[in-house]
Amino acid sequence: MKHHREELWFHTSTRRAFINITSQVQAAIAKSGIREGLCLVNAMHISASVFINDDERGLHQDLDRWLEGLAPHAPIDQYRHNDTGEDNADAHLKRTIMGREVVVAITAGELDFGPWEQIFYGEFDGRRKKRVLVKIIGE
Amino acid sequence: MKHHREELWFHTSTRRAFINITSQVQAAIAKSGIREGLCLVNAMHISASVFINDDERGLHQDLDRWLEGLAPHAPIDQYRHNDTGEDNADAHLKRTIMGREVVVAITAGELDFGPWEQIFYGEFDGRRKKRVLVKIIGE
Amino acid sequence: MKHHREELWFHTSTRRAFINITSQVQAAIAKSGIREGLCLVNAMHISASVFINDDERGLHQDLDRWLEGLAPHAPIDQYRHNDTGEDNADAHLKRTIMGREVVVAITAGELDFGPWEQIFYGEFDGRRKKRVLVKIIGE
Repeated sequence: MKHHREELWFHTSTRRAFINITSQVQAAIAKSGIREGLCLVNAMHISASVFINDDERGLHQDLDRWLEGLAPHAPIDQYRHNDTGEDNADAHLKRTIMGREVVVAITAGELDFGPWEQIFYGEFDGRRKKRVLVKIIGE
Repeated sequence: MKHHREELWFHTSTRRAFINITSQVQAAIAKSGIREGLCLVNAMHISASVFINDDERGLHQDLDRWLEGLAPHAPIDQYRHNDTGEDNADAHLKRTIMGREVVVAITAGELDFGPWEQIFYGEFDGRRKKRVLVKIIGE
Repeated sequence: MKHHREELWFHTSTRRAFINITSQVQAAIAKSGIREGLCLVNAMHISASVFINDDERGLHQDLDRWLEGLAPHAPIDQYRHNDTGEDNADAHLKRTIMGREVVVAITAGELDFGPWEQIFYGEFDGRRKKRVLVKIIGE
């Protein structure tokens, strides 16, 4: 069994952002030399997400508006987590909806994807350096 | 390390449907000859889901009604994704709640499940051919 | 390839609870002798969850209140699942939001975690014995 590990770093200029990381994950798979296996991609921070969906600007607007409806940022004093001095309780809830991680199949050295699947980093409390872990096992 | 790959195909007659695929996944595990490992089961389309829950008709009605409340189909012009000519923005959101994938343990050649765990394909934009990927690694 | 399997048992005194299980998962990894690989941690019951978030009391209060808003327990007759004599339909929905499982990377024999990641068991229909599965593969 082979294994490979990489970190991807992000520093968004906005509080919330969706970034397509598919090519970076594919590059990590190429570097690993693994042809058949599983690839875990997870946010290493608990106010961010890794998810798979469509790379379509309108959908990303819909996701952002929908998440804000389900877990509004303001007023920040509606959340007990923010009593600690944070203002990011909503980011923890938004990431819960979007998920921490994806596990993707590797077949013949490639991401084994359907026609529209793309991997995104979802940032909900940005404007600082944060990381994604890529861990690949296989042969 | 052994590996095995299969696709399961679905073509539902309704826009939304829940289909129990547990026996198909178990059959793929049997075919793989893998006794100990992990099995990834994921929707290959971004408006569908694979999830684990109870095979109980009332619960499926509750899930369907609940998802429609959280991400209504109509009016379709409430979603910017639908400006592209699609009418399935809600399906992308519903699948986000339900999840893209499950990872299940294989122990002694069987799905290592609790008493009520069953694997479902969740369709949110059906009436066309769509696929699920089963990828198994282990020994 | 090595593999290791453990069950963790819980019996909460309240209907809902969040329990930090990080050290129990780390102990399972140590027992496995696996240095590089993947670790699946999943609820074996469909009204419970395993998830990763912050070990902060205020956040857990926020999560509990938020889930109750998204999927209220009462009135129990709003759910068709409860027509079967159960009163836990809301627990199935809450677990859907929180997720069944996490997959975590193992690197150099340790959980490969960001600074605040902790693994929790989320109970939504407790006051009885329930289980979590830990399945580890790697080398």
